[in-house]
Amino acid sequence: MRGYYEDKDEVLSRLRRIEGQTRGLQRMVENDEYCIDILTQITAASNALKKVAVSLLDDHIRHCVVEQTEKDKDMVREATAAIGRLIKA
Amino acid sequence: MRGYYEDKDEVLSRLRRIEGQTRGLQRMVENDEYCIDILTQITAASNALKKVAVSLLDDHIRHCVVEQTEKDKDMVREATAAIGRLIKA
Amino acid sequence: MRGYYEDKDEVLSRLRRIEGQTRGLQRMVENDEYCIDILTQITAASNALKKVAVSLLDDHIRHCVVEQTEKDKDMVREATAAIGRLIKA
Amino acid sequence: MRGYYEDKDEVLSRLRRIEGQTRGLQRMVENDEYCIDILTQITAASNALKKVAVSLLDDHIRHCVVEQTEKDKDMVREATAAIGRLIKA
Repeated sequence: MRGYYEDKDEVLSRLRRIEGQTRGLQRMVENDEYCIDILTQITAASNALKKVAVSLLDDHIRHCVVEQTEKDKDMVREATAAIGRLIKA
Repeated sequence: MRGYYEDKDEVLSRLRRIEGQTRGLQRMVENDEYCIDILTQITAASNALKKVAVSLLDDHIRHCVVEQTEKDKDMVREATAAIGRLIKA
Repeated sequence: MRGYYEDKDEVLSRLRRIEGQTRGLQRMVENDEYCIDILTQITAASNALKKVAVSLLDDHIRHCVVEQTEKDKDMVREATAAIGRLIKA
Repeated sequence: MRGYYEDKDEVLSRLRRIEGQTRGLQRMVENDEYCIDILTQITAASNALKKVAVSLLDDHIRHCVVEQTEKDKDMVREATAAIGRLIKA
């Protein structure tokens, strides 16, 4: 069983939004829209991808921890939050 | 006239590949593929998006420079290369 | 003449703060402080470094633009802001 | 007991090198060295900081895993490697 199973629908709907963003980017380039606006959209898509990554990682690490005490769960939550901030640093 | 005009086809085909990657990611999640493999694909898509961004920026900054001497062009190339390394740092 | 000349004192004082942060990190490791707290400090130092980079870039690109009309200045400001968001993406 | 204990000397010597890099950056700014060269140094320091972060994370996650089978260790190694690539993406 895969770690991200619980959030599968959530992850899928986020990925569909990102797919939509990449299609929007193609339209912007085709219509010669302003470079800086395109960069803003790229930044948004890139941030959205990293959010998906952090949520997958959270589930994955959670499943590495065999003993599921409350303290273990807190440690994983805390570690994933730190990774999330680092990825954005 | 927009800065990225010259590379428009190149930029569009890169964005289409990224769109394909985001569809591939949805299939991977639907098929419960291994989390780490999905993360690897997310990393690839994120890198591809940043490459598009750096190439748009390169064109944009080039168009900010009014006097197009060889030295100006070198300065822009150099600045964009530095930005590219920084974005990956 | 170098581009960042105007903000030299500001840049230097930011770099001194970052140097202080790296010394603080060494103390934290020596005292066996909690890993997540150390990661938070690393994230802060990394963000501070990128802020210095974006401010140097802003000055540098500004000096690439020969004609200093108000519109040119706006374009540079806008481009640098986009780069800053991208670097954090 | 803290997770990074085993690599403490290694982590400390890396942090000392990064402190040296931030002092070098101050000298470069004081001597009005070329902006792009300074950006290259900032990129190097930022990469070095992230390497320290990933190595601390590796130890931390390893200590979250209670059962230390070979398979567990492989999973942690794999997860940390994926995080490292993502942080650079």
